[in-house]
Order: sequence, then C-alpha cells, then structure tokens
Amino acid sequence: VTQHPFRKIQGRIVFENPWFRLQEHEVVVEATGRRFRYAYMSTVPSVMVVALTEAGKIVLIRQYRYPQRAFAYELPGGGTDGEPPRLAARKELAEETGYVASRWRKAGEFAVYCGLSDETCHAYFARGLRPGVQKLEETEHATVHEVSYARLLRMIERGRFRDGMGLAALALARPLIEKELGLPSRTNKRR
Amino acid sequence: VTQHPFRKIQGRIVFENPWFRLQEHEVVVEATGRRFRYAYMSTVPSVMVVALTEAGKIVLIRQYRYPQRAFAYELPGGGTDGEPPRLAARKELAEETGYVASRWRKAGEFAVYCGLSDETCHAYFARGLRPGVQKLEETEHATVHEVSYARLLRMIERGRFRDGMGLAALALARPLIEKELGLPSRTNKRR
Repeated sequence: VTQHPFRKIQGRIVFENPWFRLQEHEVVVEATGRRFRYAYMSTVPSVMVVALTEAGKIVLIRQYRYPQRAFAYELPGGGTDGEPPRLAARKELAEETGYVASRWRKAGEFAVYCGLSDETCHAYFARGLRPGVQKLEETEHATVHEVSYARLLRMIERGRFRDGMGLAALALARPLIEKELGLPSRTNKRR
Repeated sequence: VTQHPFRKIQGRIVFENPWFRLQEHEVVVEATGRRFRYAYMSTVPSVMVVALTEAGKIVLIRQYRYPQRAFAYELPGGGTDGEPPRLAARKELAEETGYVASRWRKAGEFAVYCGLSDETCHAYFARGLRPGVQKLEETEHATVHEVSYARLLRMIERGRFRDGMGLAALALARPLIEKELGLPSRTNKRR
C-alpha cells in the first residue's frame, strides 16, 4: 500500500489562463503534523512526437520560446485539447510539420516538471509519414528540419538540442528508434 | 543575427514563493503588432546528477511528489542556492544519497519546461563515489536505489522511471555513461 506522506488541508487558485492554472495548497506532513504551502501549475496532458521519415530522418521543429528569449530545436508536440493524447499527437504533428503518419506507437509517458507542475506528457513514435502543409497559429514561428538519428545524437552532445521535453521523449522512444534502425539493443545483456 | 519575434511591453509578478516567481508579460508580435499576454515561472537554475558507483550502478532516489500524488524514481538533484551549478550538484548528491564523488563531468544543459518556465537544468556525470550519510530536509522522504545501466533502461522502457528531468539528463549523459561502460558509440557511423 502506498502511503501519502502529505495531505491537502485546503487550496486556492492563484492564477489561471488558457494554458495553466496555478494552485496553492496548504498541506500537512502526516508524520510530523507540520503544515506548509505547496504551489504548482496544473495543465492538460501534453504530447511529443518522434517522427521518422521514409528516408530515416527524425523531424524537428525550430521555434522561438519567450521564457528563454531564444530559438530552440524541439520535437513536434503540444497540449491536448480534451481529445485523447494519440489524436492530439496526430494533430500537432500535422499542424507543426505538415506530416501525416500512418503508423503510431506509444513510447511512454513522463512527468514533465514533477516538483512544480502536474503535467504528464505522452510520447509517441510515428512512422509511415506522408508530407503535407504546416498550419501554424499566429504566435507560432516554427521551421521544420530533418536530421539523421546519428546527427541528432551529435546535436544533443554538442548542446544544439536542449529542450528537456524533447530529450525526455527521445529517451523513451530510443528502443523503438534503435530497433527500427537495426541498431543492437542496450538492454539484453547483463551489465 | 537572431531576431526576437516577440517584444515585452510591460510585466508584473503574479505570485512569488521561495521556489519560483510567476510573471505575466504583455508582449507584442513584431511582425504583426498584435499584443498578447504570456505567463511563465522564473526559477533559479537546477542540477541533475547521473552518478555511477564503483560497482557500475547508477544511483537513483525515490521520493513522493505532491503534484503527481505519487512516489517516483528520479536522479539526485535540485535547485541551486546562488552557488555555481557544479557545487550545487555536489551538495545535492551528498544530501540526497550520502555519496561524495571525486570525478565530475558536465553532461550538458537543458530547458526544463520551455513554454512555461525559464528554468535551465545543468546535468552532470559523477564518478569516484565514496559512501556517506543522507541529510534530507523534513519534507523530503527519499530512499536510495542503485541499478545497473541495463536495468535502468528496462525501467524506462517499462514506465517505472518516468521523471522528465531525469530522462532528459540521462539523454545528455548517455555518451559519457556508455563510453565509461565500454559500449560502442551510436554517433560515429553514417545512418
């Protein structure tokens, strides 16, 4: 049985916009009775897509991120709008890159920012890509880039791909990518 | 030259506590003149540590995370307190696991939650571990777990390690880990 070491006493919504809600809870530590306040963001689940083209390239986007005041390479993805994550993944891939994929695999899920947000991101591996037309929102400025897996790994080593959600999704999709590319598994030996 | 497509008009602090500040900015899209509001968290930089023991095991912690209402396996890490990230990494590793490491390598940096936070996380690879004593804060409940790299990869595949920051740090540390363990590189062939 999993015991919850903290219990919520009361809570309030500090701030809300279309993308997140900031909550602050008064929480008690069950073991000691001590009370403290815990503030965190609540969001809808999000999705990230590792899409491999027929030419064996991974599809990246590059867009401006206001909190970093910088352009960044990322994987296609975004928030769900009440639809199941798999449908959101199809929609985000099509909107951001134009690609429509025929073969989808779930790569896993992760807690994006576990101390300060309740956001869960669903990571997918997409194959069978057919090109189409990007449909970006006005505040989006994404360009599409296709790189080999080996080049993406070098970009990561050199600090040129530094989006945390993309890195996490790649860590989850890694066995699927490497199997698809015919690379030997890292998990089937005792080390 | 990198053009900034958005420009800040004005800003306010919506909420502040010892861990983050929530800011809301009024921003103008340079290309269109349209204005919109952008809210995001500001935090100090954070650190994550991939620590490999002399027995070739990676050191994990397992702790309760209130936003997820769940226990989770994570890498040791935390926020910096004004000290350089490398010192924060030493401190967090020692406090959360007891280990003191003699050999440190920077694995890279990542934007943790690029749309909703300005947090940058610094990832390190630590070797030469000497065991010591955990020093946790009252609200921390971390247990230490040591697993082989192959077992960690299986935990990731099976959804048992699902912390986004830890997955991102592992993606960055991967070439250092695999070189240390004598695994062949994934980046030196044309694919």
